Amino acid sequence: MAKIGFVGLGNMGGPMAANLVKNGHEVHVFDLSEAAVQHAVEAGAVFADNAAHAAEGADFLITMLPAGVHVESVLVSGDGLLDKIGKDCLVIDSSTIDAASARSLNKAAADRGIEFVDAPVSGGTAGAAAGTLAFMVGGSDAAFAKAKPILDCMGQNIFHAGGAGAGQVAKACNNMLLAIHMAGTAEALNLGVNNGLDPAVLSEIMLKSSGRNWSLEVYNPVPGVQEGVPASRDYDGGFMTDLMCKDLGLAMDASQGSQSPVPMGSAARGLFNLHQSQGNGKLDFSSLYQLYRKKS
Amino acid sequence: MAKIGFVGLGNMGGPMAANLVKNGHEVHVFDLSEAAVQHAVEAGAVFADNAAHAAEGADFLITMLPAGVHVESVLVSGDGLLDKIGKDCLVIDSSTIDAASARSLNKAAADRGIEFVDAPVSGGTAGAAAGTLAFMVGGSDAAFAKAKPILDCMGQNIFHAGGAGAGQVAKACNNMLLAIHMAGTAEALNLGVNNGLDPAVLSEIMLKSSGRNWSLEVYNPVPGVQEGVPASRDYDGGFMTDLMCKDLGLAMDASQGSQSPVPMGSAARGLFNLHQSQGNGKLDFSSLYQLYRKKS
Amino acid sequence: MAKIGFVGLGNMGGPMAANLVKNGHEVHVFDLSEAAVQHAVEAGAVFADNAAHAAEGADFLITMLPAGVHVESVLVSGDGLLDKIGKDCLVIDSSTIDAASARSLNKAAADRGIEFVDAPVSGGTAGAAAGTLAFMVGGSDAAFAKAKPILDCMGQNIFHAGGAGAGQVAKACNNMLLAIHMAGTAEALNLGVNNGLDPAVLSEIMLKSSGRNWSLEVYNPVPGVQEGVPASRDYDGGFMTDLMCKDLGLAMDASQGSQSPVPMGSAARGLFNLHQSQGNGKLDFSSLYQLYRKKS
Amino acid sequence: MAKIGFVGLGNMGGPMAANLVKNGHEVHVFDLSEAAVQHAVEAGAVFADNAAHAAEGADFLITMLPAGVHVESVLVSGDGLLDKIGKDCLVIDSSTIDAASARSLNKAAADRGIEFVDAPVSGGTAGAAAGTLAFMVGGSDAAFAKAKPILDCMGQNIFHAGGAGAGQVAKACNNMLLAIHMAGTAEALNLGVNNGLDPAVLSEIMLKSSGRNWSLEVYNPVPGVQEGVPASRDYDGGFMTDLMCKDLGLAMDASQGSQSPVPMGSAARGLFNLHQSQGNGKLDFSSLYQLYRKKS
Repeated sequence: MAKIGFVGLGNMGGPMAANLVKNGHEVHVFDLSEAAVQHAVEAGAVFADNAAHAAEGADFLITMLPAGVHVESVLVSGDGLLDKIGKDCLVIDSSTIDAASARSLNKAAADRGIEFVDAPVSGGTAGAAAGTLAFMVGGSDAAFAKAKPILDCMGQNIFHAGGAGAGQVAKACNNMLLAIHMAGTAEALNLGVNNGLDPAVLSEIMLKSSGRNWSLEVYNPVPGVQEGVPASRDYDGGFMTDLMCKDLGLAMDASQGSQSPVPMGSAARGLFNLHQSQGNGKLDFSSLYQLYRKKS
Repeated sequence: MAKIGFVGLGNMGGPMAANLVKNGHEVHVFDLSEAAVQHAVEAGAVFADNAAHAAEGADFLITMLPAGVHVESVLVSGDGLLDKIGKDCLVIDSSTIDAASARSLNKAAADRGIEFVDAPVSGGTAGAAAGTLAFMVGGSDAAFAKAKPILDCMGQNIFHAGGAGAGQVAKACNNMLLAIHMAGTAEALNLGVNNGLDPAVLSEIMLKSSGRNWSLEVYNPVPGVQEGVPASRDYDGGFMTDLMCKDLGLAMDASQGSQSPVPMGSAARGLFNLHQSQGNGKLDFSSLYQLYRKKS
Repeated sequence: MAKIGFVGLGNMGGPMAANLVKNGHEVHVFDLSEAAVQHAVEAGAVFADNAAHAAEGADFLITMLPAGVHVESVLVSGDGLLDKIGKDCLVIDSSTIDAASARSLNKAAADRGIEFVDAPVSGGTAGAAAGTLAFMVGGSDAAFAKAKPILDCMGQNIFHAGGAGAGQVAKACNNMLLAIHMAGTAEALNLGVNNGLDPAVLSEIMLKSSGRNWSLEVYNPVPGVQEGVPASRDYDGGFMTDLMCKDLGLAMDASQGSQSPVPMGSAARGLFNLHQSQGNGKLDFSSLYQLYRKKS
Repeated sequence: MAKIGFVGLGNMGGPMAANLVKNGHEVHVFDLSEAAVQHAVEAGAVFADNAAHAAEGADFLITMLPAGVHVESVLVSGDGLLDKIGKDCLVIDSSTIDAASARSLNKAAADRGIEFVDAPVSGGTAGAAAGTLAFMVGGSDAAFAKAKPILDCMGQNIFHAGGAGAGQVAKACNNMLLAIHMAGTAEALNLGVNNGLDPAVLSEIMLKSSGRNWSLEVYNPVPGVQEGVPASRDYDGGFMTDLMCKDLGLAMDASQGSQSPVPMGSAARGLFNLHQSQGNGKLDFSSLYQLYRKKS
């Protein structure tokens, strides 16, 4: 069993740390929120009063933080953890941050002889709790092999996307594509409805035709068409519009850094940003369907 | 067995008529191209020297023509067939035309006591030959029920989309959504490739994640990732960019007529039109991936 | 002085006919609305009880109708006026319709030895009343030369855009470009405001810089920045969002017919359509700024 | 006369420093390129062998660098200049960087009791040489008042856009709007040309109509329509596509940071990025017109 330092115990990090505990690991946890730490301790984790103490003597250091600046602040700036942990401690950053920062963190670690993987997740809070997250991992083959048994405790699909930063790139690509087909699905269904079609019938037709996509299959944005999806509970829960807007910003960063045109992702981002501006940031992202609907 | 008039024997209409013959129907065929008529006759159809003769005494009249103006010209204008066929002859228009024209043809037929369904297809020339087309049908329940056994001879999935014009609307929605996720898929894969990812690995990851869609599953636009797709034979065959541009124009018409916003479909249309303008109209539509690639 | 038949006396046609009367012409008027005819007669026009009577013996026939179908119905279908007027009667269609219909009307006229110009206007109801409209004219040099003195009675800038249909194309291009820079201006100002800038200061800076455009100069979309514009009277009056959506549809038609990519016009159309769907069709088109604003 | 430290002597910084010399100031210059320093010294500037020496005892410190990371590196990181200059030295950063970095530099300066303005320019290398640049300045009233006489030596229009970062925001807004109307102008003209119109005639019409904008007025993108513009010399010189892509990336950053929707700017960015990917990064940005043209 491994000794694991875990920094960042939010909606995702909390249950992830708990799953590591369940799998028998010794997990030393820290978060700026005392309540979050307390919650993790109740789940069997070991209390640490700061990040450095959580990381002390760890075999693995896992960070799960809101943005690149936080990860850099914890690992690199001032007395960052990269200067405190041992060379045999593998750092796993599961935060969703921009690829350039991930690459630069990987380099900062390598400069100190430390292995690092970027390993953002998808699957939401439900996946975090159930231990069924998907991890998209960037890093060397050796680092991936070493990280995989730990990630297996928290997730179901562990993908090795490529070298440093590739995990973040893969997630940015995937979520951009998700935004595109969700917006497209909402738009196509609205076009059908405005022309008198039943959205359930049209959904069924497109599901069996070339319009098929994940949004249509398991996340239909029209209320009443599918059971158990956010659209059928007033767009509560799920994946917030605010988070989709964040991820689309990261996709723009990846595109800017690599001079890659992303006109469709940009169009989707424009729509989600309009929807967010209209006060819907906390609703599930499939509520974009409402942006299209006719108001009297 | 039914007596069927069939007008329009192009790349799609020819094999469709042949499949009706194979199923034992008496099919009287006409096309402006003598070669096309000859070809159908060789397949067992009955020669007609004009459209009126093909339709004479028919139980079903099927039209498979390039655009709304042609269908109106054959059925309505001057001495159109709607004034010549019997009231018990069901008209099936399998052309892909705008929904407004389909509705107006349906009304013109109804005014004469004739039943009409709009029944555009998807599945391409391969599906036409194999008899595995999908039909999206708009019209009354009675007309659909009557048309279905005939359509079954030519296709595999026969969808009743709704009332008059609904078949055309469903096809426009589906193909617009197809254009959107194909463009999105090309764009996401290019973003990954430009960031050093292997397109096959990224495709695999997104297929198992929320980016999944038909383009990624069965029609990967990156050469070498999937076997048997147009991308792996220089984008030859498949569904031409020109045809996608035509269908996206029909989606714009449907949106204009119903005051429906289609920003994603419009963005996709912009890209396919750029690609077409650059001389790629005859290539399969998945060649859009090439629009994104870096040139030195 | 000329004898002029004038069909279509709406918000634009009414004052245009009145200006012809003021310039000493004998104007025979018809409209389906009796009130509109009555109003024109009070302004000095001659009553006609149908379109054919208005056109009888005219030197010029002017049509000002909502859409292509109406113009075709009046001029061509059934007993259309083109078969009733003399060969020396010049037909001026000032309706805003699609270029393809304008070309086909021109051809229908030419087939009968009649000269035809498409001459859509810009300048709104205020320009129609003041006689300061701009006319964008498509047709032969001879037809343009003959039409010009008549158009001079109703407008200030009379442009010869080119041959048949060119007037409609020029208007579609201009209004598409207007939609693009209005949307862009609204978006840039909102971006500035959201970053703490004063919209008046930012407007002033961009007016003196390369961002300058007509929307910024004379039609600022932010309430309170400019006096006398729709934005400063709750977006009342001016050019309705509904009309901009109509014109953008015509631009899409022109693009489809000529296989021209219009990604920016399409993006603008998507936004105006969203704004229209949210119930703002009757507001001035500069109210698009409100689509961008943050709501709590 | 003031003592001025000047760091960054590229295509823009070189001539700007020279203009300060011409106005009688004592300008101490540094750049990583020795040739650039040499060139400035020949123009009358004082040689400095590093940035710290250039800034020593200066009344003003001006930086003109490629990106935010360079400015932060010179001013803040490690032994940055903010810790070396006197409290009465005003820092003027004329680099075009993201607004967030500008705000954070302003704060870093304020924390040390130093005044800072962000003052990006527009006007290109020609404007830099002629001393006719426009400066968009963000900072306090006092700092602006102090900076203005210095900026007057290098430019013609000195705008006070607002507080910290406002100069960068104003430039991002302006250049985004420029990109939008240039793309729109190219697109509208191409639509006209594809429909048989003469681009010079159509340009003239739109210039006198509501389509009017800076691109149409002084920077027509169609070869042969206007003299002296990049379009009439194979898109050589002017403002490179690469730089427009950089500025549009900064606009995306400003939009992300303030949760502002920028669908039109995003659409323009998509097009310029496609054009850049096709190998046209070094051409003037008005060459976007070529992206639209039909190829056989």
